[in-house]
Amino acid sequence: MDNDKLTLREIAGIVGGSVEGDASFVVAAIAALDEAGPEDLTFADARHAAGLAESRAGAALVEAGAAVDFAGRPVVRVADVQRAIYQLLCRLAGQEDLPAPGTCPTATVAPDARLGRNVAIGPGAVVGAGAAIGDRTALCANAVVAAGCTIGSDCAIAEGAVVRGRSVIGNRVRIGPNSVIGYDGFGFQTAGGVHRRFPHIGNVVIEDDVEIDACSCIDRGKFGSTRIGRGVKIDNLVQIAHNCHIGPGSIIVAQVGIAGSSKLGRYCVLAGQAGLVDNITLGDGVQVGAKGGVLQDISAGQKYTGMPARPATEMIRMWHSLPKLPDLVKHVRELESRLAALESSKTENH
Amino acid sequence: MDNDKLTLREIAGIVGGSVEGDASFVVAAIAALDEAGPEDLTFADARHAAGLAESRAGAALVEAGAAVDFAGRPVVRVADVQRAIYQLLCRLAGQEDLPAPGTCPTATVAPDARLGRNVAIGPGAVVGAGAAIGDRTALCANAVVAAGCTIGSDCAIAEGAVVRGRSVIGNRVRIGPNSVIGYDGFGFQTAGGVHRRFPHIGNVVIEDDVEIDACSCIDRGKFGSTRIGRGVKIDNLVQIAHNCHIGPGSIIVAQVGIAGSSKLGRYCVLAGQAGLVDNITLGDGVQVGAKGGVLQDISAGQKYTGMPARPATEMIRMWHSLPKLPDLVKHVRELESRLAALESSKTENH
Amino acid sequence: MDNDKLTLREIAGIVGGSVEGDASFVVAAIAALDEAGPEDLTFADARHAAGLAESRAGAALVEAGAAVDFAGRPVVRVADVQRAIYQLLCRLAGQEDLPAPGTCPTATVAPDARLGRNVAIGPGAVVGAGAAIGDRTALCANAVVAAGCTIGSDCAIAEGAVVRGRSVIGNRVRIGPNSVIGYDGFGFQTAGGVHRRFPHIGNVVIEDDVEIDACSCIDRGKFGSTRIGRGVKIDNLVQIAHNCHIGPGSIIVAQVGIAGSSKLGRYCVLAGQAGLVDNITLGDGVQVGAKGGVLQDISAGQKYTGMPARPATEMIRMWHSLPKLPDLVKHVRELESRLAALESSKTENH
Repeated sequence: MDNDKLTLREIAGIVGGSVEGDASFVVAAIAALDEAGPEDLTFADARHAAGLAESRAGAALVEAGAAVDFAGRPVVRVADVQRAIYQLLCRLAGQEDLPAPGTCPTATVAPDARLGRNVAIGPGAVVGAGAAIGDRTALCANAVVAAGCTIGSDCAIAEGAVVRGRSVIGNRVRIGPNSVIGYDGFGFQTAGGVHRRFPHIGNVVIEDDVEIDACSCIDRGKFGSTRIGRGVKIDNLVQIAHNCHIGPGSIIVAQVGIAGSSKLGRYCVLAGQAGLVDNITLGDGVQVGAKGGVLQDISAGQKYTGMPARPATEMIRMWHSLPKLPDLVKHVRELESRLAALESSKTENH
Repeated sequence: MDNDKLTLREIAGIVGGSVEGDASFVVAAIAALDEAGPEDLTFADARHAAGLAESRAGAALVEAGAAVDFAGRPVVRVADVQRAIYQLLCRLAGQEDLPAPGTCPTATVAPDARLGRNVAIGPGAVVGAGAAIGDRTALCANAVVAAGCTIGSDCAIAEGAVVRGRSVIGNRVRIGPNSVIGYDGFGFQTAGGVHRRFPHIGNVVIEDDVEIDACSCIDRGKFGSTRIGRGVKIDNLVQIAHNCHIGPGSIIVAQVGIAGSSKLGRYCVLAGQAGLVDNITLGDGVQVGAKGGVLQDISAGQKYTGMPARPATEMIRMWHSLPKLPDLVKHVRELESRLAALESSKTENH
Repeated sequence: MDNDKLTLREIAGIVGGSVEGDASFVVAAIAALDEAGPEDLTFADARHAAGLAESRAGAALVEAGAAVDFAGRPVVRVADVQRAIYQLLCRLAGQEDLPAPGTCPTATVAPDARLGRNVAIGPGAVVGAGAAIGDRTALCANAVVAAGCTIGSDCAIAEGAVVRGRSVIGNRVRIGPNSVIGYDGFGFQTAGGVHRRFPHIGNVVIEDDVEIDACSCIDRGKFGSTRIGRGVKIDNLVQIAHNCHIGPGSIIVAQVGIAGSSKLGRYCVLAGQAGLVDNITLGDGVQVGAKGGVLQDISAGQKYTGMPARPATEMIRMWHSLPKLPDLVKHVRELESRLAALESSKTENH
């Protein structure tokens, strides 16, 4: 927060909260419960309020109605702690590190590319033939927008990101460093032991307000489009294969892989390292747990986990039973002996 | 297909098929069964022919002998639907987006690099000292071929790809955007709590007709070579560690990881997110299912899946049994009681 | 080894060993047991000594006291075979492929960036406003160090790597090709169906002697720092989320994913494709097996594996029991019948 230190009074103003205790307390930094020092502001929603007593923080953001044990240190009470943190970070975040409008001398822009107003083309960035870049969009250092692609307004294409294959990208989209949008999908026609790639004539369509982070890959359609719906958020190192459709508002966490032609509904959530085989359909609001492996369609609203993925409550029961299996095997063998003994004694009795 | 719309008659000519119905039907686009509109051509092999009745497509590619329920709409009959799609896409695909022969002014080519005829070095691309690039090979924007590497003829090194570590690459090889070939392998000599990396003096050898997609990594050998056999196809975000050998014709799907010194036979298939620990040997034609984790060698022709990977039929039986486990535990406990009751009544009887 | 062929006598000198047999034998290359030819030097620690008899190698590095069956071919005896290989590779490894000190004409260095002595800025590399680069550090082709970042001395930032978000990097750190350090973390505040990213005002701090390989991603802290401890080694395609702390000396193998705010102790080892959910704490020396999925804290010194991860010995017992499950289900059903028969006969008897 450097030259920009705020008092609790100012913070209460930013987040719409009220101070209890010393409102003139100056906050050095925001910090988690276990990392905050006496000059820092920490925070705890109801679930974590118990941690306040042990925190070394000098002040805290807490829920309006929560009983807190904080040894008289000042607190700012708010309706929603996470929202308050969001508001505070918005206030504290500096200008983003984007190149200034204009084209750097080391950039390469094709003569027939169309650049909107106040477009920023950073050092080493490349805009191919016939590409179009919307107003106020920035290409960071060494980003590439290849021939025939269209980028909307107010986008940020980060360092080293590659957009190709006639991708069409909406407004306010962010593509992270070294991500690759629009490379050919992975499909082959094999004859005589030779794999020949299907030429890919489709593209990637990314709707408004999508954010894709670093080193993720979205392949172009074989024909038609791979489509990323409005407001979708995609983490690092994610693989989305050709002709997938990701429904609006979905969240795809790091290292997820989605095979070809799978279709996600609206507001799905795939946790880290989850995977879908090809041609899967997920209904709206489906959630798949970390490392979940989806081998069949899932209907709307279901939570699945495990490999192969099953309804989460069922899977968690199995996970709890599993440690009992080795002893169960022994136990059944022992029951068998006892049962055989009974059977033979019964036979003898006759 | 834009300015390039084809009639069914023309399409039949391209794919070697025969039209049933209106051969003058003009196709707007190729589309999957569930996405095609009345101006589009869809397709269905025997397995999916049932979907034709419900498709809104105006025309379809179908198998020569198949009975189809398509309400009188025209069809093109072919021996092999996938092959026909392949042929059609080959006809429709435009020129690939590769830089034109010559060296862009923003590229950097070492004075002693050897470039073949009609080599294309795109904007920002870099060719290091002593590197050799074969005839008609293209380096796209910001690709790097570092010192001492050799690239064959008719290759495409995509945007941001990095080839280093004295890699030797054959002909007609494609390296996808932001992939990394030839970085040091991950091996350390630890002494006194300090990990020191083994210097890697080996390289990567990639044979003819290999395709590697986006953001994949192939490490150079510690000594000797990491070797990718002829015609191998590698998807996005794949990890291949030092000194692996991937047999000719193998298919490695997205996010697979192969640890050091593992050896794959010919025509192996590793499905998405599968993994092999180090020093594994797979025989020819081994297939590993999605998310499969291979901890021991697998002999030729076997299909394995699961973690740890087991023969697929066996693993699938286990997956089916697993949901029964929680109740089985209860059931055995109940049998135990009943058995104990019998035993005690027997004791009483005596 | 080319122009640099060594005799066994010279090799013994380099590794501090002693020759048995023909010390004038000239070594063509170092090679693994199963790949070495008659001109090559192979090696085998006690565990692999049995392989010597079948190896075609002309000479071998072996342990000082080991009994070896090597048909009279010469050996070099050393106390520690792996250490000897390390020493030999250090001797054989050429100069690394780093750009020469100075700034390439196609690089872009902000006027207010501070460069130490003998800094090398390769072709197309970019140094942003206010960034600082320490003595003898090299930025390879197309690497980017964005505004406000600090890099120590003797570092190597490989081709296409991106360092941003005001990262602070120590000395002797290596960042591999196309890795991304310091992009925003994946955290959102959702209201009214709209996901808004938390502005990230934290950074990444990488301590001395850390090595990060290719295409790995380390996100900046939401506030505070994501911290990579001294001497940590990180393989390819690894994901480390915002605000993680990785304890000194830890080893993170390829394709591991660590979710937000997780904390690793000293000298942890995460094997390939392992994953941690968010807010996990691992004690010192914890080891997680390949593909392990950690859903809860693990105390110091424990070895865990599987999904969800459990103590390795326990998990391996389960893995051994699992194949018995399908038959166990049948067996229990059969026992039930036999038990019911006994019960009914008993009832009849009464």
